[in-house]
Amino acid sequence: MGDDILPSAPRIWEHCEALARCSERADALTRVFLSKEQRAASDLVLGWMREAGMTAKLDEIGNCVGRYEGDRPGLPCLVLGSHLDTVRDAGKYDGMLGVVAAIECVHALNTKGKRLPFAIEVLGFADEEGVRFGCTLLGSRAVAGTFDPTLLEKVDHEGVSMQQALTDFGLDPAQIARAAHQRDDVLAYAELHIEQGPVLEAEGLSVGVVTAINGANRFLIEIDGMAGHAGTVPMNLRQDALAAAAECVLAIERRCASVPELVGTVGKLETLPGATNVIPGKVFFTIDIRSPRDAERLAAAADVEQAMQAICARRKVALKIDPTHEGRTAACAPWLREQIGQAIAAERLPVRELSSGAGHDGMALVDLTDIGMLFVRCKGGVSHNPAEAITLEDADTGARVFLRFIENFRPGDARA
Amino acid sequence: MGDDILPSAPRIWEHCEALARCSERADALTRVFLSKEQRAASDLVLGWMREAGMTAKLDEIGNCVGRYEGDRPGLPCLVLGSHLDTVRDAGKYDGMLGVVAAIECVHALNTKGKRLPFAIEVLGFADEEGVRFGCTLLGSRAVAGTFDPTLLEKVDHEGVSMQQALTDFGLDPAQIARAAHQRDDVLAYAELHIEQGPVLEAEGLSVGVVTAINGANRFLIEIDGMAGHAGTVPMNLRQDALAAAAECVLAIERRCASVPELVGTVGKLETLPGATNVIPGKVFFTIDIRSPRDAERLAAAADVEQAMQAICARRKVALKIDPTHEGRTAACAPWLREQIGQAIAAERLPVRELSSGAGHDGMALVDLTDIGMLFVRCKGGVSHNPAEAITLEDADTGARVFLRFIENFRPGDARA
Repeated sequence: MGDDILPSAPRIWEHCEALARCSERADALTRVFLSKEQRAASDLVLGWMREAGMTAKLDEIGNCVGRYEGDRPGLPCLVLGSHLDTVRDAGKYDGMLGVVAAIECVHALNTKGKRLPFAIEVLGFADEEGVRFGCTLLGSRAVAGTFDPTLLEKVDHEGVSMQQALTDFGLDPAQIARAAHQRDDVLAYAELHIEQGPVLEAEGLSVGVVTAINGANRFLIEIDGMAGHAGTVPMNLRQDALAAAAECVLAIERRCASVPELVGTVGKLETLPGATNVIPGKVFFTIDIRSPRDAERLAAAADVEQAMQAICARRKVALKIDPTHEGRTAACAPWLREQIGQAIAAERLPVRELSSGAGHDGMALVDLTDIGMLFVRCKGGVSHNPAEAITLEDADTGARVFLRFIENFRPGDARA
Repeated sequence: MGDDILPSAPRIWEHCEALARCSERADALTRVFLSKEQRAASDLVLGWMREAGMTAKLDEIGNCVGRYEGDRPGLPCLVLGSHLDTVRDAGKYDGMLGVVAAIECVHALNTKGKRLPFAIEVLGFADEEGVRFGCTLLGSRAVAGTFDPTLLEKVDHEGVSMQQALTDFGLDPAQIARAAHQRDDVLAYAELHIEQGPVLEAEGLSVGVVTAINGANRFLIEIDGMAGHAGTVPMNLRQDALAAAAECVLAIERRCASVPELVGTVGKLETLPGATNVIPGKVFFTIDIRSPRDAERLAAAADVEQAMQAICARRKVALKIDPTHEGRTAACAPWLREQIGQAIAAERLPVRELSSGAGHDGMALVDLTDIGMLFVRCKGGVSHNPAEAITLEDADTGARVFLRFIENFRPGDARA
């Protein structure tokens, strides 16, 4: 068996199509945690794992776990994977592509009869999106040993508790802790995922190396000015909450555009009372600031706050800042970034490093082991949408790079 | 009877309070065209007119018309007045103060036994706000001879047509044209009204001379950018519709603040899809631009359009501009401004000229005769709101100035 045995992009494609058919609705891909659609998807994935030469089972929270032993049984493992659940009206690749591509890489190794000096585990996480119970990363947190048992009391929109749903699925909620991996058994976590952003497409690249899963700050802002008649209040006597907010929007944009990879977004803005002939007396808006580097994110958030205070003081309007979310950056380990980059370079492709603005299972697994990610270009940066699209060629490139990374994987110094 | 007989501010106050009790709801002053509350208010007003020495009647559209003859019967008249209808949940002074103060001035003349070399007519217009049928200035248009009979088919929210409502009120819709005054019978129209803006209060003045009822342009703007993930789309690849709109808001503010009396307002702004973690792909907002000078208003509207086109072109977002309203300025006649100013100066008060950003009955009467207006300070510029407020002292000052204007009125050259 020669080195010309490669992952099959058409099979990756077919498997993504097959998973997309496991949906609550025929016209809008939706597959949530512990649903019968998840059961159907898991049955497919466990079957593909076995065809690829792995032992395969569901773990205590419903993750698909496939294991391909190394050159002797029981060696520490490189964990590969992504998630098998979806948002409502989802695309076919967010999550699934990473699970399917990892299985395909093992399939290629197995076809070559190749064993490595470490084991491989492929995980298909049962929940990352958090659609059913409103809490994310349930599958990867169970594997990382950080699953919070109080979440078992959470109920879905039909009033079914997570505890009940696990039981109905045939799982024992009391045993979830057994899904946790031991640090010594794991060498690293690596995930292939679509970018969900436009960077690779804009630069004409198939793949990229992720530097970090960005941390985020979110705020809800309220600006209180003075409503008034649009015809009778002269410009110099106004305390226009919207004009103040407009300055804030531009200050956020300017500050966040000044640092590479920093992003800042005002996604929602509402004017009150909201009439053509009334000066806005009150405006609410949201801010979302993300960066691969926590210090840069925090500095930006502080500068934005200061800028908004100056704007509102100058305009004599009141500013209220309500922090609604803060999450740290999950950095990808430099040694894994390097090895993924080497695999890309070996395919004679430019090595583009970029951060992930979206969240991923690595945010949970970073508590267990070092993480690395390979991004694959997607069309227009569109995701969480049926228009999510990749090319067969990019699927092929991504899987080839990922296989090369796996075959050349050397455990990092940090964990050696 | 001496010159020390002046209008009674306490009676003006009481009459405003009495009119405020003619309301659809006890807790929110609302009195619309041809309602039983209007009937009650009209009965009060006709009674006060007669007590003031006038003949009084309802005209063919329901306006209260009081006439105080001059030093011989049948002379051309100076028309005074304002409106008796209200918005929903209104204040007590918008409209009513002008009617009540005009009657009080005639009451003072009558008490003195003074006749002038012209007649006075006091009009209490039955509809200015247009709340019931969605079309404004019905009373004053009927008097000006510009009432549009096709409006009779308009229906209120209960499906009652204006035609039917007039009949139910005891009026004959076929006779509305008879409410029109003849040009030769009218010397001028003068109205006392609360400012509905903050200028007089800001300058510590009780009263001001109106230069014009401002013309207005209104637009609905749509900006189409590109929605995207707030975390994954780098700042330099964004087509953020809200950031573009924010620049437009500030461009409108800057342009309109550059010319005295010009005002520009973005009263309503909506972001789509409107989620914290999604870059706005589409924004809708309104623009309202007003000025006492049509040329300045049109120049501002053109500059704002050009500025928005430049902003949107630079940001690679699409701009749609939908003009939703355009109304010309109704200028107050210089000779009436001068006589009102002289009356203010004679009271040893500073003569402040200012334009009216809000609409008034003069906008209709300007088609019949020259118009002039006297503004009275109101609290905080608040109007169309139960918090609308004036002081007894300002009511007194306003009525004294108005009476002095009436007593010294000399028909203008324009109409002589």
